Order: sequence, then C-alpha cells, then structure tokens
Amino acid sequence: MNDLRNDADIIIKEAIQNVLPDSAVVRALQEMDIKCPRIHVVAVGKAAWQMAAAASKYLGSRICRGIVITKYGHVKGDIPDMTCFEAGHPVPDANSFAATGEVLRMVRPLGASDAVLFLLSGGGSALFEKPLIPADELEAITHQLLASGADIVEMNTIRKRLSGVKGGRFAMMCAPAPVYSIVLSDILGDPLDMIASGPACPDSSTCEQAQAIVEKYGLRLSAQAWECLKKETPHRLEHVYTQITGSVRQLCRAAADACRALGYTPLLLTDHLDCEAREAGAFLAAIARTHQEDAQRLAFIAGGETVVHVTGKGKGGRNQELALSAARGISGIKRAAIFSVGSDGTDGPTDAAGGYCDGETEETLNALGIDIYETLQNNDAYTALDMCGGLIRTGPTGTNVNDVAVVLLR
Amino acid sequence: MNDLRNDADIIIKEAIQNVLPDSAVVRALQEMDIKCPRIHVVAVGKAAWQMAAAASKYLGSRICRGIVITKYGHVKGDIPDMTCFEAGHPVPDANSFAATGEVLRMVRPLGASDAVLFLLSGGGSALFEKPLIPADELEAITHQLLASGADIVEMNTIRKRLSGVKGGRFAMMCAPAPVYSIVLSDILGDPLDMIASGPACPDSSTCEQAQAIVEKYGLRLSAQAWECLKKETPHRLEHVYTQITGSVRQLCRAAADACRALGYTPLLLTDHLDCEAREAGAFLAAIARTHQEDAQRLAFIAGGETVVHVTGKGKGGRNQELALSAARGISGIKRAAIFSVGSDGTDGPTDAAGGYCDGETEETLNALGIDIYETLQNNDAYTALDMCGGLIRTGPTGTNVNDVAVVLLR
Repeated sequence: MNDLRNDADIIIKEAIQNVLPDSAVVRALQEMDIKCPRIHVVAVGKAAWQMAAAASKYLGSRICRGIVITKYGHVKGDIPDMTCFEAGHPVPDANSFAATGEVLRMVRPLGASDAVLFLLSGGGSALFEKPLIPADELEAITHQLLASGADIVEMNTIRKRLSGVKGGRFAMMCAPAPVYSIVLSDILGDPLDMIASGPACPDSSTCEQAQAIVEKYGLRLSAQAWECLKKETPHRLEHVYTQITGSVRQLCRAAADACRALGYTPLLLTDHLDCEAREAGAFLAAIARTHQEDAQRLAFIAGGETVVHVTGKGKGGRNQELALSAARGISGIKRAAIFSVGSDGTDGPTDAAGGYCDGETEETLNALGIDIYETLQNNDAYTALDMCGGLIRTGPTGTNVNDVAVVLLR
Repeated sequence: MNDLRNDADIIIKEAIQNVLPDSAVVRALQEMDIKCPRIHVVAVGKAAWQMAAAASKYLGSRICRGIVITKYGHVKGDIPDMTCFEAGHPVPDANSFAATGEVLRMVRPLGASDAVLFLLSGGGSALFEKPLIPADELEAITHQLLASGADIVEMNTIRKRLSGVKGGRFAMMCAPAPVYSIVLSDILGDPLDMIASGPACPDSSTCEQAQAIVEKYGLRLSAQAWECLKKETPHRLEHVYTQITGSVRQLCRAAADACRALGYTPLLLTDHLDCEAREAGAFLAAIARTHQEDAQRLAFIAGGETVVHVTGKGKGGRNQELALSAARGISGIKRAAIFSVGSDGTDGPTDAAGGYCDGETEETLNALGIDIYETLQNNDAYTALDMCGGLIRTGPTGTNVNDVAVVLLR
C-alpha cells in the first residue's frame, strides 16, 4: 500500500469516528452542560439506540427514565432505565403511534425542575408521529400533495399542522420542563425544521400559508383536517436548547483535522456538494492538476451528497463514481489522490463505503483492459475499483451524515 | 447596478485586458529581452495580426522583416516591414501552403546573428502547413485516423511526420538563428506540442510509435507517406526560447489580482476546469453557500472550458449556463455572486460574453414566471439572463484563452 492510500485510510477512519453517534452525543453533552439533576430521555431515529446508549453511559444515574424509538432491528440491547421500541420506517405504523403516545405520557407531567434530553437522528419523521386526523386521511393528503407538485416547504407547512408532535409541538408539550435537543444531522445545510419535521424546533409557517396551499392545489380535506389547519404551530420556543452534531460539516472538519495531523494544509471547499458525482470528480481532479506543483502538502475537502443518473447496468455508488471519474484527471500525477466515502459505510447497493484513486489508477486499469469512460457510462465503478484495489471498505458505521471527498497532494 | 455586479464588471475587464495579444506579447518580449539586433518575425494564428502589430510597436526598427499568416478577414491594416497573408481555417488551403513557403524562404538563409521571433496563436495548425505528401492523401489519412478512433496523441504522432513544419521542424529550419517563440495559448494546461502541432517545440514521439499506430489501425498509406513516417522529428531544440502567455492561467491570475485590488481574498481553485457547465455552476454555488458566513471578502476562481450537452432548443452558451445554474445554489445569499465569461467575448452563438447571477437572481426570475431548472433543460440561459440583467457583454475582445468563472462573497 502506498503512502497516499495509507493517508486516505487514516483520514477516513478519523473523520467517521468523529461523527459516530457515541462521540457526537458525548461532545454535545459536554458543550450543553445540563445542570438539572433529573433527566428524561427521548431518543428518536435510526441512530436512536446508539445515541441513547451513549447518553446513558455519560449521564448515568442522572437519567430518571428514557424512551427509545428506532427502526425494526435497530435495538442492540437493554439500556438502564430506558424502554426501547421498534417501529415503521419510512412509513409510520401502529408501533410508531403507540411509542409516540408513551413519550407524550412521560413528558406531560414534567415540571420546571425536570429536563428532557431529546436525541434526534434521521428517520424520525416516520418513527415519531401522532396524527391529529385518521392515518388513512393523512396518507391521502400526502398523496394529493405529491401529485400536485407541491414543494417540500409547502408539504411540511400542511403536515406539521396535521401532527401532534411535529413543528415544535412536542417541545410545547414538555414545557415547563426545558428541552435539550441533540440533533445528528444527515441533511445538507442542517435546516432544523426539516429534520423529522422539527418536533423541538419553532415553526415559521402560518395558518394563512397553510390555507393558501390548500387553495393553490385544490386539496380535498375533511372538516377535522380543516380545523387542524386553523391552529398555529409554535413560532417561538424559549425553553429549547439545540446542538446540531455529527453533521456533514463535522465530518468535513474532522477530515480536515486528520489531514492537518498528517502534514497537509487542508482547505474546506464546501459541505454542500450536491452536483452529479462524476462531474464533481472531474472538478476535484481539475483542482488537483492546477495545484500539482505547489510546494506544500495540500488537501481539498468537499462534503455533501452527489447524485448519479443511472444509465448503465453496472455496480457502484456515488462515491465510487466520483473517485473513478477523478482518476482520469489526475492520471500521471504521482503526488495526487482523490477519494470519496459515505459516512454510513454503504455506497450504493455495494459492500464498499466509497472509492480511492491516484495518479496510477488509470494506467493500472488500462493495462487490465478497462476504459474508465466506458465503465462510468455503465455505472460500473465497483468492478473497476475492485480490480485496482480502489475500493474503500469500512463496514456499516452506525452513522449517516452524508459523504466526504478529499483531494490529497502529498 | 449593485456593488457585486460592479465588482464583477471591473474584474472581467481587468482579466481580459491582461490577456489581450497586445499586452501579452509586450509582457513576453520584456521577459525575453532579445539581444540580437536583427529580428525576423513569423506570426501565425487567429491573433497573428495583433501579435505582430504589438511586436512591431515594441521592437520598431529592430525588425528586419516579418510575415503574418492569419484567417480570412483578420488582417486589420499594414504593419511596417511585414507582409500579411490570409489563408484557410480550419482546413488549410492553397494560400496556407503558399504563405508557409514564403516563411521558409525567409528563414532558411538566416545565420547565428539573426533572430526569429515566432508569434503563435490558436488556429496555427491549418494556417501554417507544408505537407510532405499530396494534400488529398493527407486529408485521406486524417479521415482514416478519425474513423479508426485514434486519440489525439496518436493523430499528432502521424501528422507531425507528414508535415515539413510541425513537430519542431520549423525551428530546425531556422537554425542556426535562435528562435524566440511567444505562444498565446487557448489550450487547457498549455501542452506546447499540441498548439499548432508545435512548429517550434521538440517532439517526444518516435518513428517506432508512428509505425505501431499505422499497424494498430490498419491505415492505408502511399510509399511516399511510408517514407515520411521513417524520418525522426527533432527531440531536442536548444536554440528555441519559449514564453507561453495570455494563457487561461494568466487570465485567472489577472482575475485574482483584480479581486485582490477590490478587497477580496482570492483563491485559485483551478485553471483546468473541463466538466459540464451546469454542474460546475452547482459546485461553485456549493462553495459559496459553505463560506457565506466567513468574515472576510472572498473570491474563488476557476478557469478552463466547461462543456454543454445540448438537450433543448434555447439560446445560450457554456458561461451563461454555468452562471444560471449557480443562481439556484446561492439564492437568498445577499453577499454572493457568481459569474463566468469567455475571454473572446463570445459565449456560444450569442452576442454575450457570459453570465452573472447573485443571491437575488432566482427570486427575480421566479417573479417573471421563469423557472431556472426548466430554462436549463431547454438550454435557454440567454433568454432568462437577458430578462434579469444577467448578461455580460464585452464585444469581441481579440483574444481567446478560455473562460474564467468567479465566486464573489462581498
């Protein structure tokens, strides 16, 4: 294994380690420094169990009681003083509603000397829900909105009003107990009210807007749903303290720290990357080519989530496509490498987390009779990278905060 | 006009001014500092007349004689002691061959106390040519190569050997007179032997490679052509001094200097940009979003030449598409602008040089009923930018060194 690949593996390990739910929760708890001695935990989302277990370990007996709601198969064991529920995702089911009911029964009686620790991760929207109208009408309205072409902001304006917990209403129900909210984010740019529709986040939309949306798209609603749309969501929540953690920004920062420790000068280009994977690869390679004669070791970092428009029948993922596409542009540059990795350890429908390429990759592949352009047209990056040792394998990591791509000039 | 647009216009003007043939030639002549009192000028390419005129003005009576070969309609007047020819481009014609013959007659008798000033710009490959085989066979071989799928390096390996001036052979003919070569580059990364197939550039290809290519593609050649392929091109040229000027790197550096003068901290991302225009726009917008809260004024600079895959019937160019695509990503960011401009002043088949967008562009367009996504699908950036004042117009500039795109955070 060459030095560049070695550096890449170190950077990937450190970056992902830093956004695991465990370290992310502990870091957030340290910064929040909750004074209240009686803490009630509500953990919701795909990483709920890990987050709750980390909080339990850190806070110990200060936790009075806790409820965990996560996806089927995601509870990994008992946590002291906590009840763990598994429920439906991405579509909420009876278990979602039942577990949410348990949470509300726990928080309603709390007073100002209690604290609620709310641990939220991706998937919370389906797992944590109390519909204010029958579930089948809720589903029908969602379908109408989807079919009408309503955008995500319009969808949420309606859905928050049809829910007893979304749009800040969960936090309202905790009052007067203060709510300490730790959010493990997998959404680009961290719009708090979008993550699980913001159960502990003030809502900026209004009833007038909701009704305008109904008229705009000619939605058909029951009288009960009409009543819901007339009730405001909380626009201010002064008893809520929020820490966003384990976000893609954190992932990029951790990658930058790891680069610095290896002697690279890191530069964060973006943590909002959202373009086509192979074009991002070409752009990053163009950066590498331009700086190939710079004197110091350099690292350019781009986090986010690229997209792939599938045109072929091969095997791969967006990170693998990005890396393989970049291989062409850095071909022959001995000091250059480009890699991209998904923080969840799963890139597309493959067992790899991402891909690694350097200045020798294209030549190696050509010698094996593999043309990079054709491989990309067939979306078959996995096969090509597998043959040149360019796959990155981490196994499932237990977190999901998008991807990070790095250009190294050693 | 707002401050951002004002800054953009200043940066564009300064950057293009800096790569005009006139200033580029004068800068290169200053750096070369030719001592020889008797200078013979050979100017070839689309910018040949401007380059020769600038040299004439700077060197005055030290120029003994000069020959200019440029495209039809590109001679703008007389230059003292020079003869100007117009000839075929992109396909060489009888005038190309005749004018090239004139040049060879001028340089062959020169001695060591003479100097040749060779001024080369884009288009030189067709304008400056002396085929060693009949023109129709040269054309037939080119067609065979194109049809076979040979790459550009393979094509040039063959073509250099079939030419009396390419692949360093022109410089050979000037010896013992030293050759001062000033190259105005419009090719990404400035590979000298690619610009007009390198009349004054040593060639690294060999006869064995040329013959291997003939076998690989089963080319059909006359006996005369076979003889040509057996003759080596010069691998070393110790009497040639070369300055590349007015390249896209120069364009980017001049843009960076202009940004600095306006109080921005400039960062050159790349001068090798070659990806899809709208994806480059998305990438640059992602950079702007990530740095929108940074304290100082920032400028990110990316030079090169993006591509557009036309899917619609609208009007636009790659620079306009890049800018319009970026408008979505920076929407609402008051301090951000992104613009992209072609240094020749012509972006696609339009009268604009490029496009400018800022944080208000998307809202302005939406208010006019224009959807950016649909506009891009129809490749109709010109129409949209025209309606929101986002077109950049410079008129034809007289140079062509690719494009530059800039992210401004004011």
